[in-house]
Amino acid sequence: MKTRAAVAWAAGKPLEVEEVDLDGPRTGEVLVRIVATGVCHTDAFTLSGSDPEGLFPVILGHEGGGIVQEVGPGVTSVKPGDHVIPLYTPECGVCKFCTSGKTNLCQAIRVTQGKGLMPDGTSRFSKNGKPILHYMGTSTFSEYTVLPEIAVAKINPAAPLDKVCLLGCGVTTGIGAVLNTAKVTPGSTVAVFGLGGIGMSVIQGAVMAKAGRILAIDMNPEKFVMAKQLGATDFINPADYKDTPIQQVIVELTDGGVDYSFECIGNVKVMRSALECCHKGWGESIIIGVAGAGQEISTRPFQLVTGRVWRGSAFGGVKGRSQLPGYVDRYMKGEFKIDPFVSAVLPLEQINHAFDLMHEGKVIRSVIQY
Amino acid sequence: MKTRAAVAWAAGKPLEVEEVDLDGPRTGEVLVRIVATGVCHTDAFTLSGSDPEGLFPVILGHEGGGIVQEVGPGVTSVKPGDHVIPLYTPECGVCKFCTSGKTNLCQAIRVTQGKGLMPDGTSRFSKNGKPILHYMGTSTFSEYTVLPEIAVAKINPAAPLDKVCLLGCGVTTGIGAVLNTAKVTPGSTVAVFGLGGIGMSVIQGAVMAKAGRILAIDMNPEKFVMAKQLGATDFINPADYKDTPIQQVIVELTDGGVDYSFECIGNVKVMRSALECCHKGWGESIIIGVAGAGQEISTRPFQLVTGRVWRGSAFGGVKGRSQLPGYVDRYMKGEFKIDPFVSAVLPLEQINHAFDLMHEGKVIRSVIQY
Repeated sequence: MKTRAAVAWAAGKPLEVEEVDLDGPRTGEVLVRIVATGVCHTDAFTLSGSDPEGLFPVILGHEGGGIVQEVGPGVTSVKPGDHVIPLYTPECGVCKFCTSGKTNLCQAIRVTQGKGLMPDGTSRFSKNGKPILHYMGTSTFSEYTVLPEIAVAKINPAAPLDKVCLLGCGVTTGIGAVLNTAKVTPGSTVAVFGLGGIGMSVIQGAVMAKAGRILAIDMNPEKFVMAKQLGATDFINPADYKDTPIQQVIVELTDGGVDYSFECIGNVKVMRSALECCHKGWGESIIIGVAGAGQEISTRPFQLVTGRVWRGSAFGGVKGRSQLPGYVDRYMKGEFKIDPFVSAVLPLEQINHAFDLMHEGKVIRSVIQY
Repeated sequence: MKTRAAVAWAAGKPLEVEEVDLDGPRTGEVLVRIVATGVCHTDAFTLSGSDPEGLFPVILGHEGGGIVQEVGPGVTSVKPGDHVIPLYTPECGVCKFCTSGKTNLCQAIRVTQGKGLMPDGTSRFSKNGKPILHYMGTSTFSEYTVLPEIAVAKINPAAPLDKVCLLGCGVTTGIGAVLNTAKVTPGSTVAVFGLGGIGMSVIQGAVMAKAGRILAIDMNPEKFVMAKQLGATDFINPADYKDTPIQQVIVELTDGGVDYSFECIGNVKVMRSALECCHKGWGESIIIGVAGAGQEISTRPFQLVTGRVWRGSAFGGVKGRSQLPGYVDRYMKGEFKIDPFVSAVLPLEQINHAFDLMHEGKVIRSVIQY
């Protein structure tokens, strides 16, 4: 069949919206019509060419919501008409990781997914007979896309796909990092570095966890407005403290440091500040942001020996098939917000403009509506 | 009064065993006769001059066992005749740290202890009227020493002080890091980097925690004999794998990495290896060793984002007054061994020889018996 898609033909070039060929679902695969997709910094990172694992030509996009159109042989858990969120972290339920009870990082299809291919080692996308690669196993910048059955989460069909698509990455990543990875306790003090979609979601997660004090940190003070609406209590612009390391500012503000901190940028220097602003004896810092290729974090080991803990979180520690539907339900019950994060809704033809808006820092998320 | 002591008059010089003056205990203080003391790498580190916080002249030693001789005004929890282990990590029971339920790092007397002084800001040791500093609040290289009441743990008087003195540092640090900090679970795989007193104690802790596989790693294969006796199951000399990073060797040996690793050396490069040999998704690495001044640990943040956790441990996370007596009881019940760690017993006059033996790597611990 044919599908409209935004193709990244090469690193650093604008996407080209055009018709491409899409093969139907094979064994264990499903065909999904994407209704809406967010545009995330990770898409931009890969498009820029900075991602050492980035491959081209490729159809980007990993924050989508859609409806199953057709299923391949052997597919039993979803059927045409089901509403689903594509999962870049799948859940096979049987691998060592899925059965460990300790992680959401299913490894069942990691190797082929990393190569931009379906689990059988081939691509479903092509143009004039030349293959185009999948991206993060999802490729939601195509109106129709094929995914492994284990990489779709069946959700409440009443949920608005143009909102809950953001649960496919940013919102879940932020809230999950608070609730699953850090397990923030009531009354605790939380610092959030970077107020994009993930940082704002961390604030919401901290409110859900009943944190007592939530410090929002960003170089762009315009972000403080929404941070405050979502529940942050303190607002810190590191530019206001040029002569003092920001970790020292926070330690002084909080009588010794915070109980939990979250790095939501991908800046290795900020990751260090986030660790070192934690309270001696028990403070835990969670890295969520994705750093550039080859970059490293560092600190004095004394920071850890005196009780701080350094962790990371991927997709908020959330298991996509078994736990993400519950996040959709909690959103539907009003436990957290997604709507304020949708700063712009654009048609696929304007997807390059969506990237521009993100680079300008003027939006939390642009959503592409097919 | 007068006491025999080994005085460190200056960095890098041998200790001098001589008679010094000791003032009696003031309010909240106790006078203890040290019966035996271990000689630990931390003493050597400070004596070498590499410790940026090292101060001289000073009476070193922090791994002792003794008997209370006299108590100052206000002391209620111990009395003359009580057997005690001096605590370089005290337990006041009332500070923010002690009451947090999250850490053993009591901060009640940290500032004065760091300056080599008693909590009232003065020293009890002197020679010809010139003060000599305390060390780690304990100074067990003196036959008689004065400590704050909150810095002694009252223990079972039946316990042999020439053995349980090692619970004042190394043995507790290693076992506690396994049981308290890492909370190693039955059946798990554990890697231990560095087979000194702490590493050997980690092995014992891992056996107590019913670990399924215990990898012992050291450049000195002579250490493998005792490691095996204590319960290690695999023995790795990094010198045998010159072309392969040791973390990669371990990941391959263990089908993806270990569940827990412990760095017991103080080498920041080994700390990195210890983290990176952990299993994706859940492996936790605990830093126990003390690194040189200004040295830093580093890694790619991806190591943490994909589920590894980096922690540290001080005195095994053990609260000295409330928990250390239980360690003495467990030793008395035969749950773990101390005796094989006492490689040499020497009189105070031969304390410099004890340092030589340690530097030659020929002993786990030398114990000074007064």
